[in-house]
Amino acid sequence: MNNLDKLDSYIDKNLDKNLEELKRYVSQPSISAQKLGLKECAAMVKEMLEKRGFTAEVMATDGAPVVFAERKGKSDKTLLIYNHYDVQPPEPLELWESPPFEPEIRNGKMYGRGVSDDKSHLTARLHAIDAILEDEGELPCNIKFIIEGEEETASEHLHDYISKNLDRLKADACIWEFGGVDHRDKPVQYLGLRGICYVELSVTSLGTDVHSGLGGSILPNAAWRLTWALASLKGVDERIRIPGFYDDVISPSARDRELMDALPEVADEYLTRYGAKGFIKGLTGGTDLKIEEVFVPTCTICGLTSGYQGAGSKTVQPAFASAKVDFRLVPNQMPQDILKKLRAHLDAQGFSDVKIEFLGGEPAARTNPDDPFVKMVVDTAEDVYDAKMEVVPMIGGSGPNYPFVHDLGLPVVTMGHGYPDTKAHAPNENIRIDLYVQHAKHMVRVIKEFSK
Amino acid sequence: MNNLDKLDSYIDKNLDKNLEELKRYVSQPSISAQKLGLKECAAMVKEMLEKRGFTAEVMATDGAPVVFAERKGKSDKTLLIYNHYDVQPPEPLELWESPPFEPEIRNGKMYGRGVSDDKSHLTARLHAIDAILEDEGELPCNIKFIIEGEEETASEHLHDYISKNLDRLKADACIWEFGGVDHRDKPVQYLGLRGICYVELSVTSLGTDVHSGLGGSILPNAAWRLTWALASLKGVDERIRIPGFYDDVISPSARDRELMDALPEVADEYLTRYGAKGFIKGLTGGTDLKIEEVFVPTCTICGLTSGYQGAGSKTVQPAFASAKVDFRLVPNQMPQDILKKLRAHLDAQGFSDVKIEFLGGEPAARTNPDDPFVKMVVDTAEDVYDAKMEVVPMIGGSGPNYPFVHDLGLPVVTMGHGYPDTKAHAPNENIRIDLYVQHAKHMVRVIKEFSK
Repeated sequence: MNNLDKLDSYIDKNLDKNLEELKRYVSQPSISAQKLGLKECAAMVKEMLEKRGFTAEVMATDGAPVVFAERKGKSDKTLLIYNHYDVQPPEPLELWESPPFEPEIRNGKMYGRGVSDDKSHLTARLHAIDAILEDEGELPCNIKFIIEGEEETASEHLHDYISKNLDRLKADACIWEFGGVDHRDKPVQYLGLRGICYVELSVTSLGTDVHSGLGGSILPNAAWRLTWALASLKGVDERIRIPGFYDDVISPSARDRELMDALPEVADEYLTRYGAKGFIKGLTGGTDLKIEEVFVPTCTICGLTSGYQGAGSKTVQPAFASAKVDFRLVPNQMPQDILKKLRAHLDAQGFSDVKIEFLGGEPAARTNPDDPFVKMVVDTAEDVYDAKMEVVPMIGGSGPNYPFVHDLGLPVVTMGHGYPDTKAHAPNENIRIDLYVQHAKHMVRVIKEFSK
Repeated sequence: MNNLDKLDSYIDKNLDKNLEELKRYVSQPSISAQKLGLKECAAMVKEMLEKRGFTAEVMATDGAPVVFAERKGKSDKTLLIYNHYDVQPPEPLELWESPPFEPEIRNGKMYGRGVSDDKSHLTARLHAIDAILEDEGELPCNIKFIIEGEEETASEHLHDYISKNLDRLKADACIWEFGGVDHRDKPVQYLGLRGICYVELSVTSLGTDVHSGLGGSILPNAAWRLTWALASLKGVDERIRIPGFYDDVISPSARDRELMDALPEVADEYLTRYGAKGFIKGLTGGTDLKIEEVFVPTCTICGLTSGYQGAGSKTVQPAFASAKVDFRLVPNQMPQDILKKLRAHLDAQGFSDVKIEFLGGEPAARTNPDDPFVKMVVDTAEDVYDAKMEVVPMIGGSGPNYPFVHDLGLPVVTMGHGYPDTKAHAPNENIRIDLYVQHAKHMVRVIKEFSK
C-alpha cells in the first residue's frame, strides 16, 4: 500500500465519525443575515480546530468574529485556507423536506442549511488533515485557517480584518472556501469571483397605511414609487441604466474566451435544472452564454415587500415598500463607486425619496490561470477524479477574494464538492457524500504536493 | 317629555348594555380575505336579530353566507338596511395598541378590527330599533336586513344573491352599511360609491429560486418581470396606460361640481392625518382635489411580495413574484371589461407571463342627490347633529351598491358614525362613542319619519 492509498483508506474508514462532526456543525444555526447563532458557531469551530492541535482564536471584528487558527509543519511553506461558518437564511421553510437545522442523510446525500455552503468544506478539509496527522504525526507544511462569519452578507468586515492582520495571515497560497464538479462530475477550478454591491431600496410615502379608496386617488403610494424607481434601473432589454455603471468594466481577454470556450455546454442543463423556458437577452447557449454568466455585471431584485401580502384582497395603500437588490460587479468596478452612481441616478430620475441602505459589497478579483499553484491543484485532481480539472477563469458568484488577491498577494484556488444540484441558498441544500470523500482525498494530495 | 326625547333617553340609558353586545360581536374574528370565522359570525348576527323579534335566516351563497332578516311593522312601507359582518385582515399586528379581536374602550373610543367598518353600524341600528320597540311595542314600518360576509373582498357573491332574491328584498329605500361625519363633526351624506376591480398579478419565472450569482446573469427574474409589468400600467404621471381604460368614464356633471364645491376644504387635514408631504398629480387642494378623490378612476398597488424579505441580505433570484392591485372604477366602467383590457394590455406589452387572478369587483353606482328619501335623511340629521348634513355626490371607496340601485331600484343613503380618524382597514381601528350614540338617535328619526 503506497502512502496515498494509506491516507485514502483512512478517509474512507473514518468517514462516519467525520460526518457526525459535520452533522453537529450543521445543527448549529449561524445565519449572518439574521445575526443568529454566530458566536456559538465560532466557538464550535475553534474547538474543532483545537482538536487537531491548531492554536485557534476567536477574534472580534465590528461584525461577526473571525476564527483564526494555525499549526506549524515540517516545511517553511504556508497554506492559507479560507472558510466561513455562517449560512444563508433557511426561508422558505415549507419547501424543505427535512428541517434545515436537523441534518439528515438520505440516498447518499446529507441535507441541511449550510451543509454545502460551506460547512462540509471545512470538515472535509479537517478530515484530510486528520488523515495526514494520523499517518505522519505532524503537518508537512504550515497551515492557517481564516474562518469568517459574514460571507453570506458580503463579508462586511473581512477586508478590514485582513488589512489589520497582514503579518498573521502571511502565506504562499490560498485555498478558497468552496469548489465543485460540473454536471458530468468533472472537477472544476474557479479562478475569479465577481464583486457585489448589495442594497436595500425603500420608500416611506406616508405616516400610515391608508384605505386605497382614498389614498389611491390623491396620496403618494410607496409601492408605486418603488416600482417606478426599480424600473428606472433596468428595462426589459436588461441593460442597466445607471449612468457610468459600465465605465470601469474590463472585457474578457482572448485567453478568457479560450478558457470559456473549452468549458462544456451548459444551456440545456440549466434550463432543465432551474425550470426555465429560456434565457434572457436572447441567449441560447455556447460561449456567449458562458461569457454572459460571469464577465457581465448584473442588477438583480432579490426581494420585494410592501403592503398586504396575505390571502385574498385588502384594499390598502401602503405607506412603506422595500426591495433587496444586488449588483454583481466585474473587474474593475468598485462597490462604493456603484453606490454613488446609483444615488445620483435615482436623484436625477426624481427618486430622491428612495432611501438606499448599503448591506455589503466587495470588488471582483481574479487569480492568473497560469500560476504554478493553480497548475499543481489542477494536476493533482486527475488522480482522484479520473478526469482533467476544467479551468474556469471567473464565476458568477461573489466572495471576498479581493483582499486575499490584492492585499495578501496570494494565488487563490477553489476545490470542493459542490455539484449542480447542491441547492446552495435554496431549500433542500445538500451535498453528495461520494464527492465529499473525493474532496478530502484531493486535499491530501494538494497539501503534500504543496509542501515539497 | 316628547316622544323623541323619550327614545333618546332610552338610547343613553341602555348604552352600556348595547356596547357589551358590540364588544362580543367585535371579539368574533370574521376575516373574509382569510375565510376566518365567517360562519360563526353569521350565526351570531342571526341570533342578534332574532332577539329583536326578527325572522332571521342564514342563507348560503357560493361564498360566505348572507344573513337575511325581516320584521313587519305598522305601515306598508319597507326599509332595507344593508350591513356586513366581515372585516379586513388585522395585519400588521405589531402596530395595534390593543389586540384587534379584544375590543377595548379607551378615552371614549372603542378599538378593534371591524369595530367601525362596520360592526358598530349594525349594533347602533339595533339600538335604535330597541328604543322604538320599547316605546311602541312594534315597528312603525317593515324593516329588512341584508347582512353579507364578503364586503371586504368586493362582495363577490352578493350581486348573484340579490338577483335571485328580488322579491324577498323588495323595499322602498335602503340605508347603507356606513356613514359618518367630517373633521368638524358635521354629518355627511355619501351618495355614490366607486366600483372596484381587484386583481392579483403574479409571475412564475423559474421552477425554483436560484443563487443570484448565476440567475441574475442569464435567467428570467420573476420580480423584475412583475416590476416591469406594473410600470407598464401606470407611470409617474399617474395616467393609467391600459388602452381603453378611460373609454366609459362619465365626467362629473355641473350639479356634481356644485355639490363638491360646497364641501369643506380637506387638503391640510389630509396631509396632517396621513403624514404626507404633498399630493400626487400636482394637486394642492380645492375642488380639483375633491373631484380627483372620487370622479377619477385609479390603479393602486396594495401589496408586493417576492423573494427574500427578511433582515439583511440574501443573494437569491426569486422564481415567484406577486402584486395585489386595485382599480377604483367610476360610472360607467365595468370590472369585467377592465379585466379584459388589462389582459390585452399585458399581452401587447410582452407580459403574457404575468398571470391575472380576479379577486373581486363591482361597478360604481350612484343615487340621485335630489331624491325625496335623501332629503328626509338629510333634514332629520339636523335635529341630532345641530348642523346641516353635507351632501357628497360620490366617494372614493367602493361597495356593492350597484345591485341595490340598478337591480332593486332603490335610493341608497349613507348614515353612520365613521369619522376621519376611525382608521378603517388600518391598525387601531376605532369608533367614537359620542358619534355612535348620535347615529342611533338619527336612525330613530329616520325610521319614524320614513314610516309616515
